[in-house]
Amino acid sequence: MMTTIAESPIRSQTTEAVVDDLLSRFARLSESGHGPGVTRLAYTLLEREAHAVFTEFMTDLGLTVWTDQAGNTIAELAGRRTGPAIGTGSHLDSVPNAGAYDGIAGVVAAMVAARQLADQEAFDHPLRFVAFAAEEGARFGQACTGSRLAAGLTEPVNLEQLHDAEGVSMADAFREVGLDPERAAEARWRSEDWASFVELHIEQGSVLTDARTQIGVVDTISGSTRLHIELRGRASHTGGTPMHLRADALAAAAEIIMAGETLATDSRHHGTRITVGTIEVEPGSMTTIPGLCRLDVDIRDTDDRRQRETALELIAQAEKHAGERGVDIDVQVVADASPAILPLSIQRELTAAAQDSGCSYRVMPSGASHDTQMISHVCPAGMLFVPSQNHGISHAPEELTHTTDIVRGIDVLIAGLRRLDSAD
Amino acid sequence: MMTTIAESPIRSQTTEAVVDDLLSRFARLSESGHGPGVTRLAYTLLEREAHAVFTEFMTDLGLTVWTDQAGNTIAELAGRRTGPAIGTGSHLDSVPNAGAYDGIAGVVAAMVAARQLADQEAFDHPLRFVAFAAEEGARFGQACTGSRLAAGLTEPVNLEQLHDAEGVSMADAFREVGLDPERAAEARWRSEDWASFVELHIEQGSVLTDARTQIGVVDTISGSTRLHIELRGRASHTGGTPMHLRADALAAAAEIIMAGETLATDSRHHGTRITVGTIEVEPGSMTTIPGLCRLDVDIRDTDDRRQRETALELIAQAEKHAGERGVDIDVQVVADASPAILPLSIQRELTAAAQDSGCSYRVMPSGASHDTQMISHVCPAGMLFVPSQNHGISHAPEELTHTTDIVRGIDVLIAGLRRLDSAD
Repeated sequence: MMTTIAESPIRSQTTEAVVDDLLSRFARLSESGHGPGVTRLAYTLLEREAHAVFTEFMTDLGLTVWTDQAGNTIAELAGRRTGPAIGTGSHLDSVPNAGAYDGIAGVVAAMVAARQLADQEAFDHPLRFVAFAAEEGARFGQACTGSRLAAGLTEPVNLEQLHDAEGVSMADAFREVGLDPERAAEARWRSEDWASFVELHIEQGSVLTDARTQIGVVDTISGSTRLHIELRGRASHTGGTPMHLRADALAAAAEIIMAGETLATDSRHHGTRITVGTIEVEPGSMTTIPGLCRLDVDIRDTDDRRQRETALELIAQAEKHAGERGVDIDVQVVADASPAILPLSIQRELTAAAQDSGCSYRVMPSGASHDTQMISHVCPAGMLFVPSQNHGISHAPEELTHTTDIVRGIDVLIAGLRRLDSAD
Repeated sequence: MMTTIAESPIRSQTTEAVVDDLLSRFARLSESGHGPGVTRLAYTLLEREAHAVFTEFMTDLGLTVWTDQAGNTIAELAGRRTGPAIGTGSHLDSVPNAGAYDGIAGVVAAMVAARQLADQEAFDHPLRFVAFAAEEGARFGQACTGSRLAAGLTEPVNLEQLHDAEGVSMADAFREVGLDPERAAEARWRSEDWASFVELHIEQGSVLTDARTQIGVVDTISGSTRLHIELRGRASHTGGTPMHLRADALAAAAEIIMAGETLATDSRHHGTRITVGTIEVEPGSMTTIPGLCRLDVDIRDTDDRRQRETALELIAQAEKHAGERGVDIDVQVVADASPAILPLSIQRELTAAAQDSGCSYRVMPSGASHDTQMISHVCPAGMLFVPSQNHGISHAPEELTHTTDIVRGIDVLIAGLRRLDSAD
């Protein structure tokens, strides 16, 4: 017997229960034996399973659902008019040992919004609820691959050039999950099909909780320049080699890490973030000076020019420090995304939506990258932040956002979509 | 048909050919698929295979050979008198991705010396040729385990406490290669059985080649204090977390690495060597601030008090740097060996032996630890260095000592043993 939409258990639960249920369903889709937290990397079968949950939920609501050749899944609710759609959504992949909210909260918000709006009088515009693929750069270095392909910011040929730590190309990863990398360009969105886009996301910082504010409306999204640095010194005996005769690749790396921190916090920088998140040495023995050291650097800024100048300055300092030590250095720029300034027109509707919903709000920048950064190349786009707990910890198992805050965010999101529907 | 000693192919080759042949036989005993160089770690089946090569060679020469419960193999050539023996030898294990000479050159020297002396008129003293087990601390953190057990400097109970990176205890590693850790104390040498001991070793530095000197006679051997440091900060999003709200475990580690280098090279230190040879971070993602960092520090000094004071000072600085960043720190002293001052009586015979052999020589300290450091607790002991090429690189595949330099060293070694035989 087919369950009709009206009878579906999705409809009978409270919003809080649906949010909690979906969050825990997604959290359970995690690589086993991979330590604490959620590990559901870009272009893996686990990510596809998460998209299948989204597809099934949206299909049950009666929406038209399709997955494009970038792995993005889109569910459409028809409007009273055809023509450009209003979109909302986020991503379903994670970094290793992640929390359960980054990206997921925004997809769950889209699912709950669809559940609510499917029962109500249709909008003028079609509504599109989106689960982007591969937002996290953790696996391949490049963030927002799904939304980049949607925005035409990555060529399919690039998919062959990016590799994960095991040497698997992104193109092969596509094939392993049933996507055709040759056809990835077909995932491109046409501007004439999209009226606007709004992403709900957890803040991943502590600005909102510190200020006891319920909603953030994002005005700018940081850009990110990512470097892979390889240092080649001389492996040698820790006892036999005097300090002044060394070419210690790890000591050079330590100097570069400190230089990055000093640079990010000097008087010319405000909000710039420089992080070394990975490091490895060879041969990795207590009694051998490291001959080789590899590290990844992530440079974030909301100022386009400062971001690139800071990257160049860090590269110059790294080359100087390595050179002084007789350590060879090779620096590769593995990813480079510009900051995005989100249009005031969307910000205005979202702040008005927060007011409509009786929520406290503030306009704020985003330190993290988001799919919206890419989508803002396609159509006017905006973002809503909901508060993060635990000092804003994110990309870690301690990541936490209260269900009540997500539900409040969904109310503002729906109010915002409604405002955008009647705005033009 | 049994091959008699006189017919054995060992006897018909030149010394150069035997040295080259033995060095390459040992070099081939290396873990496969483990990158460049030789990998033959302490208490592995490969190390035992190397000892079997030594045993077979010495047995063929007619010597009495036994392996003790520490895994050390000893070959005895009878003297005209019974009573205390004169010993020589070194070790057969290696660090990961090592060269082919560290330790091995001294065992090959002992084998070639035995080959030569077995044919000649007996010494007054019995001669004992020794291949020590597990000199390298790379696997378990503790160096010189074989010679430590011989010198009574390690209790069998400690074998349960030391573990390798895979969590295997040293006691279990003993069992896996057929040694009984409960009986390790039986390997202890009695001082009354040993008149003196001389170890030939590659320099593992560039002092001899820089000064165009053929032989080093060691006066002191550096001590080594080894620390395992674990730093626990807060894993968090690299974009979402402002610089001032971070507890970055890797940034703390970088500060400690730099502090170690500064400390080792300040005006109070001469010849002190501080190295961080291993480092790892978790979760190890480009977009997550490292929440956990583990590193190993090796502090070497020829001055006993300065070695320990330096270790304490570095620990204090590490605690300060970690504390200022809100990073928890745990420091474990995993090994601590005092420097050894080798007796002048032995040095005098070795310098005279170098003169007898027409070799240039210099008296010099050893930056690296050696089995002789432990054996000097049992009987008067000394060391001969032969030159290292390639800037003295050691613990790396580029490690190189010319065969002619080893052969020259063997001549001085034999002359030295002869002098020690008639010295008392």
